[in-house]
Amino acid sequence: MPTASRPSLRTAAASARSASLADVAALAGVSTGTVSRALSRPGMISEATRTRVMEAADRLGYVVNGAARALAMRRTKTIGAVVPRFGSSSFPAMIQALESTLAEEGYTLLLSAPEGRRAQQPDILRAMLERGVDAVALLGTDQPPAVLAMLAANRTPFVQMWAPPGSGSDAVGFDEHAAGAQVVAHLAALGHRRIGFVGGHSRDSERARLRFEGVAWALARYDMALDERAFIETEYGFAEGFAAMQTILARRVPVTAMVFGTDYLAAGALAALDQGGVAVPRALSVASFNDNDFAAYLHPPLTTVRLPIREIGEAAGRLLLARLGGQPFELPVLKVELIVRASTGPA
Amino acid sequence: MPTASRPSLRTAAASARSASLADVAALAGVSTGTVSRALSRPGMISEATRTRVMEAADRLGYVVNGAARALAMRRTKTIGAVVPRFGSSSFPAMIQALESTLAEEGYTLLLSAPEGRRAQQPDILRAMLERGVDAVALLGTDQPPAVLAMLAANRTPFVQMWAPPGSGSDAVGFDEHAAGAQVVAHLAALGHRRIGFVGGHSRDSERARLRFEGVAWALARYDMALDERAFIETEYGFAEGFAAMQTILARRVPVTAMVFGTDYLAAGALAALDQGGVAVPRALSVASFNDNDFAAYLHPPLTTVRLPIREIGEAAGRLLLARLGGQPFELPVLKVELIVRASTGPA
Repeated sequence: MPTASRPSLRTAAASARSASLADVAALAGVSTGTVSRALSRPGMISEATRTRVMEAADRLGYVVNGAARALAMRRTKTIGAVVPRFGSSSFPAMIQALESTLAEEGYTLLLSAPEGRRAQQPDILRAMLERGVDAVALLGTDQPPAVLAMLAANRTPFVQMWAPPGSGSDAVGFDEHAAGAQVVAHLAALGHRRIGFVGGHSRDSERARLRFEGVAWALARYDMALDERAFIETEYGFAEGFAAMQTILARRVPVTAMVFGTDYLAAGALAALDQGGVAVPRALSVASFNDNDFAAYLHPPLTTVRLPIREIGEAAGRLLLARLGGQPFELPVLKVELIVRASTGPA
Repeated sequence: MPTASRPSLRTAAASARSASLADVAALAGVSTGTVSRALSRPGMISEATRTRVMEAADRLGYVVNGAARALAMRRTKTIGAVVPRFGSSSFPAMIQALESTLAEEGYTLLLSAPEGRRAQQPDILRAMLERGVDAVALLGTDQPPAVLAMLAANRTPFVQMWAPPGSGSDAVGFDEHAAGAQVVAHLAALGHRRIGFVGGHSRDSERARLRFEGVAWALARYDMALDERAFIETEYGFAEGFAAMQTILARRVPVTAMVFGTDYLAAGALAALDQGGVAVPRALSVASFNDNDFAAYLHPPLTTVRLPIREIGEAAGRLLLARLGGQPFELPVLKVELIVRASTGPA
């Protein structure tokens, strides 16, 4: 076995009793008050003393009783985040940025990633508030009234991530109309007049609805037509993009360009076009949204609107830290940017 | 603005004072004892009463003081997970499965996703234990001694995810030798004798090291040669796979097949081969590990070993629940499976 030479994990300190503050003080050669300050207000003591205390705490495996401290301080230094089904989407990059931003100020993230129907239940937020979160990050502005009531009644600061500008002072997101306009303007300049759209279910998802609204708004502005036979709403995913593109190919719809709600759908569609012998972009141009990390490595590389996904997480973290610190926070304007690659060409 | 017609979130319950247990009891028309039981031991009262209490609690935005309850019960129903840089890897699917499994029993996940050097610090685990986690999920078996000492001293159950079989009773993972053997046996049967390998930095990552060891072990077993000029260690990512493949192409190494440590690297390499005019699999076969969701939609679709990523998260969750409940837990044998697609062919 590759790890046979490693010592057993059980041996490390298995027989130790729980260490006390006094044990740490004795080992570090300082008073219990100094240990307490080193752990909770490190700025008040010298770095050398703090290092000695932390090394003693590490050796003894000592940790503060967080529940007792939380009761006394009325702060847990924990932020809750509720992000449905994050495992199969662009959300991990956003959550990672949120987590990193909060960690800089010593906050830890309590994550709930409900799947399916569980996503709708206020019980998730209740469980988070019971565990003692100082603030909460939510996805979008489609929140059940019970969730908002609970946050208000508990005076818990919150942020809504991936929300359209103008949703309020607690909402961080970007302008879907600008994103739609960028991709549509690009296709218009290439001479495309008749296009198709495959996106998420706008009935179920606020983000899918806003995406479609942005594209539809831009199409009207550029006097372009959406062919209804080349319009499909589905789940976001590679397989779904593949299937939707096959359906539209079979319908022989006379569109010259296809816009997809996400790179996941577009990547699946490019595979369907590749396997169906349809040349991209000569016979059909393909464009989408996100600029996921795989977009540059598709066949052909994908033209897509880069969305500020990490930036949303970072701004959400900074907003919550400002709220918790009682400082003012100016909502940043998060930019979208068209990345032109080889999947789009003249009509 | 798309959401201009929605009511302001601030109006929901903004002027409410914090609700008490007595308020919930009064609204639901039950005793405070019944409210308490409905919230903490729902099995003890009728479903109708529980529903009435929960509706009242929702309307008033009432939540239990988790810190006080944690002090009294010595349980927080919270599990900590430390998973470095999860935003750019296969870890989200694993974490999602872990979270879902724990949620079934009412546990919430406290997630720390440290980036870079922060990943090495026992401070992360200390912060989690201070916040009161009942158990901890760690990535791999490469844990600093201070982390193991802290867990032992606090008698905190833990699981090591993505660990090789034989790492101990608290480790959940799969057999990298079996995974390596599957891909190598497939290439051997196709007549390949001389191959290249591009993987992660085995010095920095236990997972990258085990992956390489599995492949190297299988190559020896099938009497195949690894060409050193077609061997590169890099970061996992599309761009890195693209660059590594370009480097190897420039070296004109006489290999007939390339194995990649992950689908991310392989997808980038396929793009480099595509743009370099190298026909896959006619001129070069490509295979890798993971079966990420995009693998079937590449050009050509990728032959890869499906790894039990979700299954690791689920098994880790069940292991922790068993430990917390004092029940026995038998480590599952998680299977790997070669998925043959169009990127591999005869030498």
